Parts: sequence; structure tokens; C-alpha cells
Amino acid sequence: MDDLKIRWSRLQKRIQGAGADALVVASNVNLFYVSGRVFMGHVYIPAEGAPRFFVRRPCGLEGEGVFEVRKVEQIPDILRDIGAPLPERVMVEDDDLTHSEWVRLAAVFPGKVVGGGSAALRQCRAAKTPYEVRVMKLTGARQAEVIPHYAAVYEPGMTDQQWSVEMFRVMLKAGGLGHFRIAGQTMEGFMGTILAGDNGGAVSPYDFALGGAGLHPSLPVGQCGAPLREGMSVMVDIPGVFYGYITDCSRIFGVGRLAQKAYDAHQVSVDIRAAIMEAGRPGVRCEDLYQLALNMAGGAGLADCFMGGAQKAKFVGHGTGIVINELPVLGARSKDVLEEGMTIALEPKFVIAGTGAVGVEDTLLVTPNGMENLTPCNPEIITL
Amino acid sequence: MDDLKIRWSRLQKRIQGAGADALVVASNVNLFYVSGRVFMGHVYIPAEGAPRFFVRRPCGLEGEGVFEVRKVEQIPDILRDIGAPLPERVMVEDDDLTHSEWVRLAAVFPGKVVGGGSAALRQCRAAKTPYEVRVMKLTGARQAEVIPHYAAVYEPGMTDQQWSVEMFRVMLKAGGLGHFRIAGQTMEGFMGTILAGDNGGAVSPYDFALGGAGLHPSLPVGQCGAPLREGMSVMVDIPGVFYGYITDCSRIFGVGRLAQKAYDAHQVSVDIRAAIMEAGRPGVRCEDLYQLALNMAGGAGLADCFMGGAQKAKFVGHGTGIVINELPVLGARSKDVLEEGMTIALEPKFVIAGTGAVGVEDTLLVTPNGMENLTPCNPEIITL
Repeated sequence: MDDLKIRWSRLQKRIQGAGADALVVASNVNLFYVSGRVFMGHVYIPAEGAPRFFVRRPCGLEGEGVFEVRKVEQIPDILRDIGAPLPERVMVEDDDLTHSEWVRLAAVFPGKVVGGGSAALRQCRAAKTPYEVRVMKLTGARQAEVIPHYAAVYEPGMTDQQWSVEMFRVMLKAGGLGHFRIAGQTMEGFMGTILAGDNGGAVSPYDFALGGAGLHPSLPVGQCGAPLREGMSVMVDIPGVFYGYITDCSRIFGVGRLAQKAYDAHQVSVDIRAAIMEAGRPGVRCEDLYQLALNMAGGAGLADCFMGGAQKAKFVGHGTGIVINELPVLGARSKDVLEEGMTIALEPKFVIAGTGAVGVEDTLLVTPNGMENLTPCNPEIITL
Repeated sequence: MDDLKIRWSRLQKRIQGAGADALVVASNVNLFYVSGRVFMGHVYIPAEGAPRFFVRRPCGLEGEGVFEVRKVEQIPDILRDIGAPLPERVMVEDDDLTHSEWVRLAAVFPGKVVGGGSAALRQCRAAKTPYEVRVMKLTGARQAEVIPHYAAVYEPGMTDQQWSVEMFRVMLKAGGLGHFRIAGQTMEGFMGTILAGDNGGAVSPYDFALGGAGLHPSLPVGQCGAPLREGMSVMVDIPGVFYGYITDCSRIFGVGRLAQKAYDAHQVSVDIRAAIMEAGRPGVRCEDLYQLALNMAGGAGLADCFMGGAQKAKFVGHGTGIVINELPVLGARSKDVLEEGMTIALEPKFVIAGTGAVGVEDTLLVTPNGMENLTPCNPEIITL
């Protein structure tokens, strides 16, 4: 696939920039990025020339540059056999491999391991290639099409979890793969979070914008089993997972009429989205966009309840793609700068005490003319 | 909770056995094991004396031994402040932390990092404490109660995925948490695998007993979207996840009448289960139990299709608990030995060409008198 060549070429620029001779890819997320599929094995990307694929189980990869191996330790011998130079400086995935995996992989190559392998891959993944942009658009369109169907499976008297189960079914019936990938072992979740009423402000150990108490201390995130009651807002945040890529779009549902403050704050969120979509162009600093959101929230007198209650997220948006927490981060102290092709989940959210979470989340594509919404659906609060 | 003291004490024996002064726990799975909840922070377990909890966000842990911190680097200062000795030899989780996390954590302590932290935790988790046995029994009973309801949501003409979505809903409505944890980043999955017909023998990059092609190359495991047809067996393997613990039980459904060979092979699986339940006692070598299964399959003339088709799993069972791939492994070259309190998913499975997967999987508790089935439900093939 020609699109893979674009990814390899971008990676090779970073490998060269790091003064390394090769990058070895082993994690599922990055195997998918550099090969288009998850398989058992490794991809060896030299600073120049074609990548080599070392495959431990049949996976459909065939042809020149594909080698069957039993174990990773065979790679140097095969490189020697085909006359490829062994790397003197090799990059591996510091942030994606366990320490044990890293140690084993580092011992395979006689040269020195240099850091930054995961960072190089993460930075490349941030700005989508033409094929990835198409897939993100398809994914966003499919997610946006599902959301209006959630209200139809709501029934008065349900708990947040009962309604969630019906919405999960709607998403899976629409072709959602269900499993969404999160980089790192510290964040976990199941299909999405549905935050009703004051659970929108519950503190969570996970670094999502809003948390929720969860159903059990073993997975303290999302819906908590609370009955849905008149006057509660419900934030429905079920990522769209299709084709191995993720879009992130959440919408607010109101159980009957909400307090006026909720509608007002929700409108501020819609306004923040519009301002950032206009301001967000290649070259713009992500921290400035975060500051723009903070200023608008503050200007509306809503700084107190912006991005959480007792615990506040220090960001208003994040990249999304193969994992839900890609670069860039639109947050405090972020050094990230927008690039064309980045796809960003923008989620200016407020937690209104006694009502719950409000605000819109959409996945936006960075273009030279501003940001394009990949998850186009009605941003208004939907009354149940 | 008194049960936590049992876990700490078992861990401390292993810390002492490794000649270390302390173990630092950071991964969600092990935080849950040593504290009963997932939180953001670390647990410091000295070789003797009470553990200390370093908490980065409020999580309900309070009282003596609990310290609020902003970052892990504060731990040595706090230990000094309370007069606790700094460890000269400290264990961290080599197999659970990323290399970057490991490097950061190792730099926090002035002493030497010694290996084996993850292994010590894994070995402790394998033999369940009294509380854990109770929870595993409750989990298994709930899972076993759900399984007979799957047939009621089957409709002729469905694909494997369509039926799966309805079964996932049944499990979630029964209180299943949905998200099941798998140790390591190389194995992934969503709720469970439903393998219909020849998809039961499909090769997968994941180390499950049977794989399945999956719905997309980004997640090549489980159901593949194939229509369910007369004469197909369907293996339904949806783990029971309740209270943060997992039981594993799969049952076979037949779309109408199956080939006689399928029933015969299924009976061999039931017989293998009975033989292993009888033979499995504390002190028995897991490799011997694997060999017992292999011998019985071979004796029935079914060696060719035991544990897969073109690709065969080299094990017939695995521990289960907080993660689905706990110790021990009932497999080739396993050095594991049964201990009282181990909970093992035993899954002697056959793949019958033209029909699909057959066999039973149950979660079994090792007792002094043999193994007890924690997932008691009808083992027969259920005709749809």
C-alpha cells in the first residue's frame, strides 16, 4: 500500500534526525501503523531503504522483505544473510514495551540502543497520512450517524448502566469494533463512559477529561449504576472504533428540562469549539488554544466548573487515531504545535453541580484553513 | 481488610526470598491486588512491616500509612521523614511497567533494583486467598448462570457478530463489567470470542487457545462476520468479569445437528476435564496434566485437531483471576506446580474441519481433594 510508504518515509526522517540506523517496531499499535495489520513479530525499519518484516505466525504478509522467524534473536543473522548492515545505533519503543521486553530486544542487536523510538512513532502518528485522513473521516461519519439513535433506547426509570448497555448494543450493531486502544497501562476503560448527574464530577484515577466513579473499585471510571432522574444531564462518550481508528465525539442528553445554567454553559462549549476551529491552523501552539478555551470559560464566569469539579483536567483536547490518546495535547505546558492532518478530539466540558456534565466533544481535522469537524451531528443538548 | 494482610505477608516472604528490602507496586492490576482498588499512585511494600500508600489523587484510601504525593520522586523523602529505612535492594515490576516507567521509578531509589518484582506478584496472585476464592466462586456462579440465556437471543440467519452483540448485552445486563484484563500488551480482545465453523481454526497473532480471524486486521481475533449455517458449531467464550475478577467458561452451541465426530470429540473434552479434575491436586506438575490431556486426545485418535488446526496452542489451561492469563500454565515445558487455591481455566478444545470448535472450558479451583468446578453449567453441546 502506497500509504505505508509515506509513513515509513516520515519515520525514516525521524530515525535519521535521531542519528540512528534503524527502528525496531514490536507493539501492536505501531505494528498496525507500519504494516496495516496486527501480527506476531517485528518490523525493522532502517534509516534508508525498505523495511523488513519478521513474522512469527502466518498473517498474510508475504513477498520480498518478509521473513518467517521463530524468535526475535534471529533477526541479526537474517540481516547478515541478505547483506544488510547491522545497526550501530538502534531505536526501540521505550514507552510501549515492558522493561523485560525492552531488555530482551536491546540484547538482540550488537549496537547501542538510543532513546526516542516511541516518541518518533507517536509524533508520526499524530499527523495523519492521506489514507488515514480518509479512514478518520469515514470513522467520524459512522460515529456521528450512531449518536442520534441513542435516545430511542432510553426508557424512564433506567440506571445509567442500563441505558449504557443498550447504547453499546446500538454502537456494536452499527459495526463498531468495541475495543478502543489507550496508550499506556495506567488508563483503562470499556467501550465508553456515560456520566449522569453528579457522577460527571466524580474523581477518577484515569486521565480522561471527566472520570466518573465506575461500577466497581477495580475499574473506577464511567457510569456508576445511578438511576437517571429528572433534571440530570447525561454525557454520552462512546468512541467510534472502525477500521482500527478511533474518533471521539460526545453529546449531552437531558432527562427532561435541565437547569438554565447547564444550557448556558453548554453554549459556551459550542462557542469554544467554534473559536478553536477557526483559530486552529498549522503552526498554532496547542497551549495557546488551551488558553483560548480557558479564557472563554473564565469570561463566561465558568472557570470554576470548567473541565471538572473538585478535580480538573489540565487539557481541553487530545489527538486521536489508532489510540485514543494520540498527540497533540491541547493543554497546560504543552509544547505541541498543530500540523496539517492532525485529528484532535476537542472536549470543552463543564460540570454543573446538581445537574451534571455539559459540553460538546468532536474530532477535528487540522487543515490549512482551520479545523474541519469529522463528527458532524447536532451539538445541542438532546432532551430525553 | 484482613485478606490484604495475607497478600502482603505472602509477598513479603517472596521479597525476603529474593534478598530485597522492598517491592514498589505501580501497575493497575497489582495496585488492585495489594490495595483492593485501582488508584493513581504507588504502594511500597517493605520486606517487613506495614505497606505505605502514596496516592496522587483522592481514592478513598485514608489513615495511617497513606500519603498524598504529587509525584513518585517524593517517596524517599517521606520514608526518611517517617524514619523508615531506604531500601538498598528494591524490586519493581519488570514485566508490567514500560521501560520508560521502569527507568523513572528505578531512579527514585538510591539503592539497586533487583529483578523479579512482576514474577513475585504473579506467583502470589496465582494461589487465591480466602476472600479471593469466595469472589472467584461468586464470579463463576454468575457466569454459569448467564450462559444458558445465550440461546434465547439467537435467531436463524444471524452472523456470528450479530449473535455476539446480543450475547454481550445479556452478559452486561447480568452485571458483567465487560472489560477483562490481559497481562501484557501483545494480547488484546473485546468481551470475548465467538468462533463459528471453520473460523474456530483460524490462525491468530494472539496467544488464546483458539483464535479466530476477527472483524478487522486491526484486531484479528474472534468472530469474523460469517453467517451462521446449519451444521456449524459455535464456541461461545465470553469471560465472566465481576468484582474485578475473571472466570473463564466456554460452551458450544450447534446450529442444528452437527457431524457425529463433533459430539465424539466434545465427549473426549468432557472426559479430559474429569480426569484432570481428579488428578489435579496440590503438588502435581502442570506439565503432567497437559501430557495427560494430550495422551487422552491422542488415545481417541484426535491428536491432529486438539487445541487448534493449522496452528495449535501448546497449553490446555491457564490460571485466571485479576487477569485472564494468570499462572499457572498447563502446557508444554511448564515448570509450574499446582497449589491449593489456584483457579485454572481448563480448556481442552478440538477443531473439527467443516464443523468448528468443540470442547468445554471451565474454571477450576485446586483443593486438597482434587479440583472443584467454579462454573457449573451443563457441559453438553446446546442445539440452537
